[in-house]
Order: sequence, then structure tokens, then C-alpha cells
Amino acid sequence: MSDRLFIFDTTLRDGEQVPGCQLNTVEKIQVAKQLEALGVDVIEAGFPISSPGDFNSVIEISKAVTWPTICALTRAVQKDIDVAAEALQFAKHKRIHTGIGTSDSHIKYKFNSNREEIIERAVAAVKYAKRYVEDVEFYAEDAGRTDNEYLARVVDAVVKAGATVVNIPDTTGYCLPQEFGAKIKYLMEHVDGLSAGKAILSTHCHNDLGMATANTIAGIMNGARQAEVTINGIGERAGNTSLEEVAMILKCHKGIDIDTNINTQKIYPTSRLVSSLMNMPVQPNKAIVGRNAFAHSSGIHQDGVLKNVQTYEIMDPKDVGIDDNAIVLTARSGRAALKHRLSVLGVELEGERLDATYQEFLKLADKKKEVNDDDILMLAGADRAAAHAIKLDYLQVTTGMGVKSVACIGLDIAGEKFEASASGNGPVDAAIKALKNIIKRHTVLKEFTIQAISKGSDDVGKVHMQVEYDGHVYYGFGANTDIVSASVEAYIDCINKFKK
Amino acid sequence: MSDRLFIFDTTLRDGEQVPGCQLNTVEKIQVAKQLEALGVDVIEAGFPISSPGDFNSVIEISKAVTWPTICALTRAVQKDIDVAAEALQFAKHKRIHTGIGTSDSHIKYKFNSNREEIIERAVAAVKYAKRYVEDVEFYAEDAGRTDNEYLARVVDAVVKAGATVVNIPDTTGYCLPQEFGAKIKYLMEHVDGLSAGKAILSTHCHNDLGMATANTIAGIMNGARQAEVTINGIGERAGNTSLEEVAMILKCHKGIDIDTNINTQKIYPTSRLVSSLMNMPVQPNKAIVGRNAFAHSSGIHQDGVLKNVQTYEIMDPKDVGIDDNAIVLTARSGRAALKHRLSVLGVELEGERLDATYQEFLKLADKKKEVNDDDILMLAGADRAAAHAIKLDYLQVTTGMGVKSVACIGLDIAGEKFEASASGNGPVDAAIKALKNIIKRHTVLKEFTIQAISKGSDDVGKVHMQVEYDGHVYYGFGANTDIVSASVEAYIDCINKFKK
Repeated sequence: MSDRLFIFDTTLRDGEQVPGCQLNTVEKIQVAKQLEALGVDVIEAGFPISSPGDFNSVIEISKAVTWPTICALTRAVQKDIDVAAEALQFAKHKRIHTGIGTSDSHIKYKFNSNREEIIERAVAAVKYAKRYVEDVEFYAEDAGRTDNEYLARVVDAVVKAGATVVNIPDTTGYCLPQEFGAKIKYLMEHVDGLSAGKAILSTHCHNDLGMATANTIAGIMNGARQAEVTINGIGERAGNTSLEEVAMILKCHKGIDIDTNINTQKIYPTSRLVSSLMNMPVQPNKAIVGRNAFAHSSGIHQDGVLKNVQTYEIMDPKDVGIDDNAIVLTARSGRAALKHRLSVLGVELEGERLDATYQEFLKLADKKKEVNDDDILMLAGADRAAAHAIKLDYLQVTTGMGVKSVACIGLDIAGEKFEASASGNGPVDAAIKALKNIIKRHTVLKEFTIQAISKGSDDVGKVHMQVEYDGHVYYGFGANTDIVSASVEAYIDCINKFKK
Repeated sequence: MSDRLFIFDTTLRDGEQVPGCQLNTVEKIQVAKQLEALGVDVIEAGFPISSPGDFNSVIEISKAVTWPTICALTRAVQKDIDVAAEALQFAKHKRIHTGIGTSDSHIKYKFNSNREEIIERAVAAVKYAKRYVEDVEFYAEDAGRTDNEYLARVVDAVVKAGATVVNIPDTTGYCLPQEFGAKIKYLMEHVDGLSAGKAILSTHCHNDLGMATANTIAGIMNGARQAEVTINGIGERAGNTSLEEVAMILKCHKGIDIDTNINTQKIYPTSRLVSSLMNMPVQPNKAIVGRNAFAHSSGIHQDGVLKNVQTYEIMDPKDVGIDDNAIVLTARSGRAALKHRLSVLGVELEGERLDATYQEFLKLADKKKEVNDDDILMLAGADRAAAHAIKLDYLQVTTGMGVKSVACIGLDIAGEKFEASASGNGPVDAAIKALKNIIKRHTVLKEFTIQAISKGSDDVGKVHMQVEYDGHVYYGFGANTDIVSASVEAYIDCINKFKK
């Protein structure tokens, strides 16, 4: 048994399938490169059969990343495995992750099958995947609610069939740590292939009852040697196990003699990058990466007692990459300083794209005295919006209290100029209505989020939008010191993505 | 040993001391009444010696709430205990919560003392508190890092001195569940007064490593019979144990034969109320109460398989009070409907305040077709802003892209009329600058948050602000379909709170 824990990151698969968290391929590559820098062992890059987008992402991530193993998800179905193998063709290190539900509820309701047949299908899938790759991981979906004796038979069978890793997911997030730890222990004791070192067990826990990290740690302490995690714990429902929590527990608790390859100082920048690209805010009191995670209350003071830091802190914020002395960029900062800061935040820009972003940076720095990390990530995100068909020429809005909001907008659509006006409830409503008077498609605004969390009234406002059109939902983003302009930009960003 | 777990809620003490979460007395009463409806056994209402505000809140909460025990925090200092006893004078059921640090780090660095002297001080504090109240809880601060043998001596001494509850806090959030469970077990086995039923143990866990709930459950399974928790897990740094997670684990896991008095269907409304009043957003993937907690991804479909709900769900959203069929109010909704919905959300309004809020509701319903729970909570919050000295008379702002933002504002200050104009970066900046041209005090805008998370461009925008003036930080709130007006309202709300 090794004292090394492999970190399997599924931010780009289990995290990315959350509604609203979808990334395009360029963004996925950006996250994958950051995960490589963070030191994860395995990147689950997608579920290739599920969509051409996922298929493509697995191909592009395989090309972009060198060190980590690239993993593709499949069901226990030949067609899925064929497509996954094709998507993995460029990966330096590749793994197919196949599997099937093993709980009675899954066997009965999902597969209308029986226990013996499920084992046959599991074995067949692993053997089929082995034709393509050496490294095959098998997942026993809903293992958390599968009885241990049957689960051990499944694990034994797939290890004999050649699986190198067996994933024991607590799919519904129901298990308690004692119970989940006991399950891993039972498997370690009852499956010969595991004690013989032919395969390792992996944990994949969900957080429905707030137990994901605790279950993962219980699994590790009982013999699991891979943990499936996501950045910020994102994922379906209440999410997956947080990478940062597992990594910091193992780092702080020297008593657990198990190491990971994670460079913990990259945790915070990775958290920021994922939160920003996926539009998933991290709550202030989130462990390790929340805004308040290292902030001590000023509310309670014990007179005359000078507190030793060690009295209240178990971690140094620097260990997770939180840097109080973060460089703030200004209008005098050069291109190199911007490039460096972007790189610290996990974004690598070169050549023309760097030039364009630098020009935007100068414009912003001219308006705001200090440009912070959030602003920089926003600028980096905006650079991809450059070459769009519909452009905002001008916008003028009058609003206030006791006056009706009215907007006049000018658009450039593939070189042709259009203008329209409208009134509305508030300036954003008026501006969007004016815009709709030009773009006459039937759209439904599904979700609309304004963020302006900052320390000044002249800060950049960020707008995220979801617009439904022709049966699809499109995501748009805009950022501007003028919140109304940012809203219009986000709407135009959506329209520019329409497929027809 | 009882199979009943007492829920000790410290949202109003450990939660409320988080910077930005401060509530006024009216808001605290609102939360306390909601906690009573939720069925918590003990409400920790404040730390009376720390400020006149805390002192007052304990008095007013004591008057407002009948069923739960009201608890006041103190250090192991006579003056603290005197003041706490005074603050608790109107409580039907009262408890003093006193204590001292017991880890070597606390004994050495915080108290410059030694182990024997700490025990003496602990015993003296408990005995002194007993002069005032029957129900005395003792906390052994940093118990998580106190060695078990010494801790058992402390617990034994305070139970002999009359403590009815002994709180074992993991102050730094360092413990792992196994370790914390073992600590509780050790105390249960080595302190006679506990097995004799003279006192119970309480858990108080912090979430720095994401282990708060797991540690609490481990404590309960090993004999603790009180859990100290907060709504949404708010609290210093990464926060405290989440009430909702503990309550739902005990409800879902019938194997743990321990009950609470919590009416779980009140969990969601309570979560919303606390999040809204404290300006602490709940992240979408927060267990139990996050927006996505019960949302299944539409991303993965297994063709031809009709999923049984039980396949993926371990809880019914209705069990925590999430009601998909929530009544949406419209302009045709009557006063009774509004009153009922407010009541469901934990806000009780009567008479004039209800009338005023209903008028505001009608205005809003006129602008928006559907008024949702967020809007209603916002209206209820606005009603306390009614009687302020500075009033916004009118506001006119012109902004856009390619034009300079300019604002003209009119204020009524105690009957006198003022007008000013200014330009700025964006409409909010222009409006605030115009306002500052009238209110000539030296203020610093510390934090500025715009929220508009909704399904339409005509939704209500909410603005939270922190303004520093004369050494104090003031919190302000504004809400309006026009985000610029909301910002100005929030700023005026701050100014109206200035102490001079």
C-alpha cells in the first residue's frame, strides 16, 4: 500500500455539468492547465459520447496538458467506450472511466436488471475498455447504498477483468464517515486484488448532507488511494468533495502519513479562476477559499491579551496562495506586469491577445485607480468576445427617481447601422427593450445576475445572463464600470452565440 | 443518557459577530422569533458585556421569545457574569455561558497562566454564575487542542461546581471526526458527573477544514447531547456547524436513534431570512439550503431509462420547507396574502407597518408582474427605513456608452431642500458624487455590493453598502427596480445611521 494519494479532479466533468457552469473549449483548456500547475494526477475532461462539445474538449485538453492523466467518462456500453477512446487519442497518459449502478435501486429502476447480469456487464465493459487503454477505472454507481458483500463481488470481478482503479461513489451523499470508512475497509479486506496491489480504490463523495470531505477522509484513512474532487466543491446538487479541503487536511494533519502532489499555494488562484469562469460564487464562509476563511472577527477582544497567531490559526493563508501583499496594477503597470499577474491567476495570454487585453487594461486603469485580480480576470474573459457580429455602437440612458427610464441604442450588425429607443422599469430594462426593438427574435431572459462586489462606486460591474432562444439556453457576460452598458454587452454576447 | 439532542443556536452571537453580519435589535428579534418557530432549544442571544447593543439585544430577545432558553455569553470574569445576569432578567428560561481557554496555547499565550490556576478560575466562574441562574454552561475554549486527560479534570471540576452543560469547542476547526468523537467518548467515560446525568456535553465545531458537521455528528454518536450550530453555517472564518445539516442527518439516518425538536419544514424560510438580513449569500451548492441543493443536472440523460426519484434523492425538498408551488404574489393579491407570505418567510407585520409595506408591495407589483419571496423580504426590510432624516426627493441620471455619466439629485434634509449635480464613471458613481456634493462629510466607501439575481431585466436590484465615517463602519441597504436609485438609497441609509 502506498502512502501517496492520487488526486482525480472532476471539475471539468461532474462540476461542469451543473446548469450555468458550462465552459467553452478555450475556457476548459485554461482550467485544465491551471489544474496541471496545481499538481492534480488525473483530469476527468468530459463524457465524450454525451455531446460533440464534450468530445472536442477531451481532444483539446489532451493536446494542451502533458503531465496529468486525461480521463474520459463512459457508461458500460461499447459505443461510449469507442467514442471515449477516440477522444483520448492525443493524450500522453489516458484513462477510460466506465461503470454501472450497483445498488438495488439502480439495478431495479434504472436497468431493470439483476445482480448477476450487472456483474457481467461491468466485466464486459472493463475488458472492452482494456482493448484501447491500459489504465481503466470502474465506477460502481450508488456504491454508498450498495451492500458491502455484493459490492466486494463487483470490485473483485472488475479488478480480475483488468481495472486499475475502482471508484466507490456515494452518489446520493447519504453516507456518514464511519459507514463510508467501514465500506472501504471491508473492500480492502475482502478483495484480494486490492491487497495484492493490482488496483486501488477511489472515493467519489457528494455533499448533500455536508459529509463529502469527511467521507473522503474516512475512505483515505481506511485504504482508498485516489480521491475524486472538484475545485470549490462544485458539482450537481450540493456538489462534490472540495479538492482544497482534502489537500489542506492532509497537509495540516501530519498524523495521517499520506501525501498528495498538490502545490497548495496554487489553491487560491485556481479557486478564483474556476469561480470566475463558471459564474459560481464562493460563499464568504467557505472553508479554505472563502473570503472570510482567514478573517478573524474584530468583534471580540479580550482586553490586555495579545493573541499569539497560533492561538487561533491552524493554517497560514500563504500556504493556500492567499497573498495579502498582492500586487495591485495601475495605469503605470507595463505589459509584463499584466502578463505576470494573469499568469499567477492561471491565465496565459500571448501576442495579439495579450496586446488587446493590455489596451483594455489601460482603459480600465484610466477609469479606476487600482485594478485588482477580479478586474484582470474579467478583462481576460472579455478578450474572447472581441470578434463578434453584433457590436454596440452607442448607448444613452436617462433614469432616476421620479423620472421614467428611457434608452436609445445604436448597433452595428455586420457593418449595417441600426438605432432604436424604448422606456422601461429602470435603466437596464429600458436598454434591453430598445435592443430588442432592433433584434426582433423571440427570446426569454431566464436568468440575470449583476455582481459588483468592491470597494468603490466606480468599480467594474459584471453581468451574467441566460437567454433562451429556439429551445436552447445561451450564456452571456458583460463587464463595464457602467452597469447598464455591462447588461447590454451581456445580452449582445448571448445573441452572438445564437446558432442561427 | 437521553436520546434527545438539544439544539443550541448561536447565529445571533457567533454568527452575528462576523464583519458585515451585524443586525439591529429589531432584526435580531425577527431572527429569534423564527428560531423559536424552528424549534431550537437554546438561543445564544449575545455577549452582553461586549457592547450596549449586545446587552440590549439580550434584553429584547428575552422579552420577545417564550419557549427557548435564552443564553448569554461571558468570559470567566465576575463583571461579565453580573452584566449577563442583568441582561437575562426578563428571560423565561435563562442560561449563563461562561468559560475559559484550556489548551496549552491558550493558557500560555492568552492568559499567561498555568493549568491549576485555570481550573480554579473555571470553578469560580461557574459558582459565581450559579448565584444568578440554575442553568450554567461552561465552555473549555480550544478543547479540540486540549489533551484529554487535563480536559477531563476541567470538566469534572466544573460539573462538581454546578455546570449543567459543558461545551467542548473545536475553536480552530482542526479536529477530524474520529479524533473529536474519541475526545467526547473519553470525557463520557472519565467524568462521573456525566454518566450520572448531572450534566451533558455540548459540541461547538468550526469549519476551517470542512469538518464542522462531521465532528458534530461524531460527538453526538459518542454521547454529546447538545449541538451548537448556526443557520447556513455562518460564523467567524469558515463558519460554524450548519443547523440544517445536523438536523437533516439525524432525520435521514434513522439508525442514529436521536431526535431533535427541529421542525425541518421551517429550515428553508429560516435560511432565507438569515441570509437576507445578514447580507450573507448562500452558495448555490450549499448542502440542504443552496439554490442547487435539490436541482438535478439536465446534462446527463441515460436514454430510455425513466429514473425513479428514489434513485437519486435521499431527501424530499418539502421536508426542509422548499415549496415548488410557492405562491407568487401579484398586484391582485390582498393584504392577507401578503401577511401570510411574510409570515411563512418568518416576518410578522401588523397594523401600520403592514399597511405601509402593502402599499410598497402594490407599487412593486405594478412594475413587476410577479413578486417573489426575495422581493417580499426586501420590502419587509425597507419598512424600517421609513422614518429617516435625509430623504431622496428626486434623481435624474444620464449614462451610456460613448456618453459621460451625469447625475442631478434632490434631497430633503429635515424639511430643507438641496440639489446638486456631478459626473462620474458610470451612473452610480455620478449619483453618489452628486450626493456627496450635498452631504459634505468625509466618508470612505468600504464595500459596495449589487445583487440582481433574477429572471428578468425589470427585477428589483439590491444594494448593500459599507461606509466608514468618523472611525465607525455603517451598513446601508437599498432596493429598487432602478439599480442607480437603489445605490443612492443605500448610501442615504448609511448616512442616516451616522451617530453625529
